[in-house]
Formats: sequence, C-alpha cells, structure tokens
Amino acid sequence: MFDQKTYINRRHRLKQQLGSGIVLFPGHDESPINFADNTYPFRQDSSFLYFFGHNLPGLTGVLDIDKNDDYLFGNDAGIDEMVWTGYQHPVSELAQMVGIKKTGSLAELESFMKTAFSSRKDFSPARNSPSCNKFSPARELSSCNNFSPARELSSGNTIHFLPPYRAQTHLKLLRWSAFSSIAILPSTELVKAVIAQRQIKTDQEIIQIEQAINITVDMHIDAMQMAKPGIKERHVIAALYSKAHDAGVSMSFTPIATTQGETLHNHFYGNTLEPGDLFLLDSGVENAMHYAADLSSTFPVNGTFTSMQKDIYSITLDAHEAAIAAIKPGVAFKDVHFKACGAIVSGLKNLGLMKADLDDAVLSGAHALFFPCGTGHMMGLDVHDMEDLGETYVGYDGEAKSTQFGLKSLRLGKVLKPGFVLTIEPGIYFIPALIEKWRTEKKFADFINYAALDSYLAFGGIRNEEDYLITETGARLLGKPKPKTIADIENLKK
Amino acid sequence: MFDQKTYINRRHRLKQQLGSGIVLFPGHDESPINFADNTYPFRQDSSFLYFFGHNLPGLTGVLDIDKNDDYLFGNDAGIDEMVWTGYQHPVSELAQMVGIKKTGSLAELESFMKTAFSSRKDFSPARNSPSCNKFSPARELSSCNNFSPARELSSGNTIHFLPPYRAQTHLKLLRWSAFSSIAILPSTELVKAVIAQRQIKTDQEIIQIEQAINITVDMHIDAMQMAKPGIKERHVIAALYSKAHDAGVSMSFTPIATTQGETLHNHFYGNTLEPGDLFLLDSGVENAMHYAADLSSTFPVNGTFTSMQKDIYSITLDAHEAAIAAIKPGVAFKDVHFKACGAIVSGLKNLGLMKADLDDAVLSGAHALFFPCGTGHMMGLDVHDMEDLGETYVGYDGEAKSTQFGLKSLRLGKVLKPGFVLTIEPGIYFIPALIEKWRTEKKFADFINYAALDSYLAFGGIRNEEDYLITETGARLLGKPKPKTIADIENLKK
Repeated sequence: MFDQKTYINRRHRLKQQLGSGIVLFPGHDESPINFADNTYPFRQDSSFLYFFGHNLPGLTGVLDIDKNDDYLFGNDAGIDEMVWTGYQHPVSELAQMVGIKKTGSLAELESFMKTAFSSRKDFSPARNSPSCNKFSPARELSSCNNFSPARELSSGNTIHFLPPYRAQTHLKLLRWSAFSSIAILPSTELVKAVIAQRQIKTDQEIIQIEQAINITVDMHIDAMQMAKPGIKERHVIAALYSKAHDAGVSMSFTPIATTQGETLHNHFYGNTLEPGDLFLLDSGVENAMHYAADLSSTFPVNGTFTSMQKDIYSITLDAHEAAIAAIKPGVAFKDVHFKACGAIVSGLKNLGLMKADLDDAVLSGAHALFFPCGTGHMMGLDVHDMEDLGETYVGYDGEAKSTQFGLKSLRLGKVLKPGFVLTIEPGIYFIPALIEKWRTEKKFADFINYAALDSYLAFGGIRNEEDYLITETGARLLGKPKPKTIADIENLKK
Repeated sequence: MFDQKTYINRRHRLKQQLGSGIVLFPGHDESPINFADNTYPFRQDSSFLYFFGHNLPGLTGVLDIDKNDDYLFGNDAGIDEMVWTGYQHPVSELAQMVGIKKTGSLAELESFMKTAFSSRKDFSPARNSPSCNKFSPARELSSCNNFSPARELSSGNTIHFLPPYRAQTHLKLLRWSAFSSIAILPSTELVKAVIAQRQIKTDQEIIQIEQAINITVDMHIDAMQMAKPGIKERHVIAALYSKAHDAGVSMSFTPIATTQGETLHNHFYGNTLEPGDLFLLDSGVENAMHYAADLSSTFPVNGTFTSMQKDIYSITLDAHEAAIAAIKPGVAFKDVHFKACGAIVSGLKNLGLMKADLDDAVLSGAHALFFPCGTGHMMGLDVHDMEDLGETYVGYDGEAKSTQFGLKSLRLGKVLKPGFVLTIEPGIYFIPALIEKWRTEKKFADFINYAALDSYLAFGGIRNEEDYLITETGARLLGKPKPKTIADIENLKK
C-alpha cells in the first residue's frame, strides 16, 4: 500500500471536485465459484483500491462531503472466523492505515445507507427507469456503462456511486435504496471526477506499473525460448503461471497463448505447436499493488519466420512504430489509430491484398477485415483502465464513439495528456469466417483483393504490444524493452 | 461430456420425482473481476452440469414437467462475437448433445419466465418474506441455504428453483418474477430430488473422480519431494498449478499450502520453509468433466519428523484409521466423527494434554480445542458436494445440526448409503489464539491440561485426507494411495 497521505489526498481532491453529497464505494465481496464458500481469488474494485487501499472483502467506503467525514465500514472477525482464516486486522486499524477515523459495522452501514437514501429529496420508488438500469443478466450489465449524463441527482443530498458491474454490488444498491435504486442512475459527475484523477498516473504509480511490466517481459522471453514443435499451448501457460506464482503476483487478465492468433481473445490452450506455426502471446501480470501490465508478442514456433510471415510481421511493426511516433500530449488517439491503420493498408497494398486509395480505405473501414480492433487502451489499476466507468468518458471525453465495424472496438479516442499510460497494439489477423462473410457480401470489393487472400486463410494473426507513458513532450516506453524486431526474435530462439 | 442418454435419464428421474411444475436451472454467466469483460475462469453451476452438461456461460435449462418439455435457452454468437472468441456451437447443437429438442433465445427465456411467474396461483408481490430471502450481501447468501421447508409453492404451477448463491442468479430471479421473487422460496422439494440423485455416484462418475484424485496424488508427491528449507510456500504452489495447467485441469478449490497448518483455511503463501517445519498441503484438482478431488498431506520440510511431531502425527493417523474402519452403509457419519474424536482424545490423554473420561470429553466438545472442524464431507461435482443446496438435507437428511463449537462445522452427519463419496480428514491443530481464549475462560478445565500446552503453542497443525466410496458392504479408497504413514513419508524424502 501507499502511505496514508496518498489516500487522504486522493479523497480530498475527489470531495473538492464534487463539492457536495454522499459518495459510496461498495467494495467487493468474495465471488463464489460453485458454492458460497468456494470462491475465486479475491480482487477488490479498482476505484475502491485507489481511494481506500485495501484488497480485502466485505468493506465499503463512504464520503460525506457536506460533513467532511470519511467512513470505512466492515465487520471485525471473531475467534470462530480466525480459526479458519488466521489473524485479521480490525476495521479500525484498516481505516487508520488509509487515514480514516470513522468506522462502523456492516449493520451500521445498512442503517446509514437506508437513512441516506430515504432522505434524498428526489427519492422516488417509481419502477420506470432508463433501460440500462433495469435488471439485466450480469453479462448485459456492461452495456449499461455508457450511460448518458441525463437525470443527474439534485445536489445537496445527492448519493454518488459508480456504475455497478458485479451483480453483488447491484444487489447492495437495491437493498440500501429499499429496492428503488432501479430509479437511480450512477453519478456521471462522480465518473468524471474519478477519471480526472485516475487517468493521470503519478511517479509512484509508474514505479508499480513498470514493476508489473518487467516481470511480464521476462515471461514473454521465457515463452519465446520454450516454444517448440511438439509441446502444447498449455505447457507455455503452465510456465507463465508458475513464474507468476514464484514472483507472488497474479495475472491482470486471462492470458492468450495460442497458435490461432486470428481469434482475438482465444482462451483455448489445447493445440500442439507445429513447425511453421506462429505463436501469439498476449499476457500481463498485476503486481502486489494491483497495477497491471499488458504485452503481446508473436513469434515462430521453430525459431525462424517464413518469408510470408516476415512480410506480414513487418507491416504490423510499421503500424506499431507509426503509432509510437505519433503519441504525444495534444494528439487525439483516434488519429494515432488512423496512422496505424494507414500503415497496415499501405503494407497490404504492397502485398497486393488491398487496392485503391489509402485514405479512402481507412475512412471506409475496409482495413477492419484485417484489423477489426483498436490500436490501444488506457492501462493502470485495470488492464483496460477504468473500463467499468464506461468508454464515453474514459475513452472519448463525452463524445459519441463510432459504430463502424473495427472503429467501434477502439477503446480510446480522446486527446492525450501527460500522465496517461496506454498500450500500443496494432495487429493483422486473417479470420476465415469474416473473410468468407465479406467476400460473399462483396463488401469493400473496391478495396480488398479477395482473390489474393486464399493463400492467407490459414495464416493466423500477429500482434505486438507495448505499454507507454505520455510525457510532457512525447512518450516513453515503460519497463525494459522486449524482443520486437524479426532479428531480435530469431536471435533469441537460436 | 457423458452421452445424451445420461442427461436424458437424469432429467427424466427428476421430473418423475417432482411430478409437476416448472423447474428452472439458471446456468452461470461470466463472473467479472474488475470490469465486465475481465472475467474469472468460467465454472458452471454443478446442478446445471449434472442435468444439462455444458460448461458454457449464458445458458438456462427449463423443465416443464406438465407438458414434458425440456428447454435450453441461450443466444447464438454472431460473427462480431466470433471474431473475438472463435467458433461457437449454436444453442440448437448444444441442446442436441444433451438430448434436448426445444431451444430459445434469452429474450424468449425472458418472456417465458415472466409468463410462468405471473401465472402462478400463489404469486404475490408482497415484500414481506422470510429473512433469508431478503437481499443480503453475497457473503451472507450462504446462510440462506439452510432454508426451512415452510411456504412450499402450490403444485400445478409451482416454479422450482435451487437456492441461489451467485448474486447474478438472484438478480435473474428478481427480474423474471418482476421483482417479486423476494416473496418466493427456493423449492425444498427440488433440493431433495436433486440430492437424491447427485449423492449416489454412478460407475461412470467414479471413473471421473478417480482421474481427478490420481492427478492430485501426483501433485502431493511432487510437493513432498520438492519441499526443503529455504524455498517459499509459493514455490510449491507454483509447481502445483504448473502440473494442473500441464494436465489441462483446474483446481477444485484454492489450495492450502502452508507451514502454519493450524489455520484451517490458510491462503497465504509467503512463508519461507524452515528446518523443523511441518508443511500442510490441502489441495485437489477438478478433472475435465468437473469432478473434484480433495486430499491433504502433512510432512516435515527437511525429511524427518521430530519426536514431538511423530507423537501428534500418529494420533491423527489413529483417528484417520478409526474413521475408515467405521464407514459403511447404515452407519451415521456423525458416529464416525465421534470415533475419530475419541481416538484424538485418547491419544492426547496419553500425551498428558487431555485428562478425565474419554466419552465425556467427546460429548462435551472439549476435543474441539484441537479438532474444531469435521471428519469429512461429501465430494463430487463440488469439492464440498452440493454445499449450495444447504447442509440440512445434503448433510443431515432434514435433521437440525448441532450448534456446539466443533460439531457445528461437521458438514456431514447422516446415515451413509452405497454410492456416497466422502472425504476422511481428522486433524490436530494447536491454535494459539483459541488456546489462549479458552485458558483465560478456564473452559473445559476438567478435560484439558492447559499447563502442558505451552510447549505446543508453535507446533502448527496436522491433517491427512483421503477420499472414499461407500460400497454395498463397506468402503473403498478412491484413486491410488498416497504416502500416509511416517515411514512412507520419510522414505519418499530420502
């Protein structure tokens, strides 16, 4: 954990920016696998971590701005529990570590919240609410994150909370509001205030992120060195997890470790590595302080790229370098993305896979056949930093995101500022099902040379990914460099 | 997966036993870590797996008993999703694999369920419900599982569902019932019918369980061989996970791998192994079919037990063997537990740590200072099999469980039947905080020789655990044997 003062200052800034009202940070509870007591590894909500520090279940933080009171609520463990779990700090000690004096039990939180909700001026038990607050299965909750700034609560006794993405948080809000939080929107004002702080990484945060990246670089080098024909993808996965456990860290997301790199988020590890295969590894750890790393590497299983692989790899690298050259304060990341797309179109045109005018191809979205996702995203306490707060503000400063295939998957489009940490990860993917669909529909036939694609159907996919900090004047690679050029990779495998 | 017929037969038996009504099996959705799209490894609900086979998110199974219709609901993936995930079977194919003809989308499920709930005769939007159905934070949901059989739904249009333990399932029930499922109890009739089937393991299930156990035995032997002074607990954890990933299986619960075995469910892995330490490993995998194993071993870090360790280890082994000798059809597991407790009291009396009459000590619960938990539990698709259905019926056939410290943690007390699979795991633990508390309170001073305990305060804890099948005539050890005697373990470390 950081020192007391860090958390006190973060909460102070937040209260200043909001000015008034009550701010709720319902921390996570344990997440059950197949019964209540068999749980996934605990991971706290990142905004809770940012303002209240503790990676422990059963806590809720509350800020009463008008009274300038900060609270930490939770239950102290008794001897019956400690027999199973070992010693647990009482909540008063946890609070003190992050500079909070007022604490209470979960029962006290219940009555505190019920009073707060029922005394709200605009409290209404009406059931008619914007569709994204109607209950939807957990997997649909994500679509609610891009909420509109409409229906702001009246200030004075506003209750601010962030959009819930775990059903358990949804249930708590329901209960605290006596089943009427369905008529209450998460607070856009709070979302904006949290983003304003969390998106600018301090020096002490950069140290944490670089620690996570350096461990991840070692993992990627290990994977490059161990990959060889005959082993299975899951043997590489075993080595990655073993390294993470040895280092006492965890994964920041489920790794992609595959010879079928054309599937963007492939979590199957059953394939055997064959000579001639490309192996795509997209993985990262989060360090002890829960700051994430996110790197991708693509390398030949038997040590040397084929000539066709070199052609495509070189184009992804050109796109990668074009993006890196473009990132600096004041530039919109959407334009950085277009630069990467332009490099891809240009390279594919040289190979005869695309045709006609470059800029038209990019604007039309034709390149999305090969690059259907984005050039990068924010990174911090979350691997896709603050994705739970919605892309509208995290990625686009309130502007509407494009709905065009490809561009709609660009998570970050807004103007860059010093302190932003982001990934750079353009790639090229040959997705047989997508090629088949577009070819049948004659989609973008002016831009795509479908006849030339037949020999690429089994190619797979290539992605390189590094993490950058936007500085006052440009950008800086975070962590130690990982093998990236064709020569780097082939030398490593010798 | 098993063949079609297995799932058809299981559902057929269930429908026959219930006779009438609609049976709901809401399958699991993905479980978010820190934002909706960053999820924990998917694990299906075990009753869904048992009756509908598929370990995939976003599915719900419904049985309409009166019309004899089985349904599988879920959404087919489109090309936009398959770009990210790769090919996904359409729901109609998934249904066919488990012998179901009727399928529908999630939107169709919504209207199906809303119609079903709103046409229930006893449907009532009242908010006053038994306390365990009021919303409570996810961690409190577990206490709701021991629901009483009161307020059964009227048959005819009864809607049966199991007690929800994931908040996402709770939210679905809320939505389907138009926010009135708060007045609806899970179905005790369904709970009993599911237990009646799942508690008796078939030969094809035993094959799966033994596969999981055999992989786990290899892991335990690896851990015994690699443990040595200087390495950290997490290095052992790294090796265990590496073996699981290599084998393409996952853990059935978070492993306990610790030199502080006195904390029953210790998930800290940061200690360095010191000469003279005992290492307690409690871990198991679930195999590809999601059947669990659960084994515990305790062994000396530097290869040989001290004389004090041998004394205590021998007593736990006596308790272990006493329990194994006692298990057979017709015997109540509560009595098996008492036999294990008796062996512990007897051994501790010989060492001078306990005193006075054996039976009195066990009945009073004095031994729980050293053995505050149970001798075993059911095992199957869950490591604590069907714990989500509540201990009342899974463990006690409807009888009330003791509230005595120690005995209240015995998950299984009922009469054993052929086909039960259970763990045997008595242990002895020296828990300084508990000893201190009882000593101060002079608790059971007639039975416990507190003065003699001082030299044991840093001892730690010992547990051995194996998995058994109750046969027609007795019991059979499942899987290959693991090193258990002092000689076995010391020889392995040579």
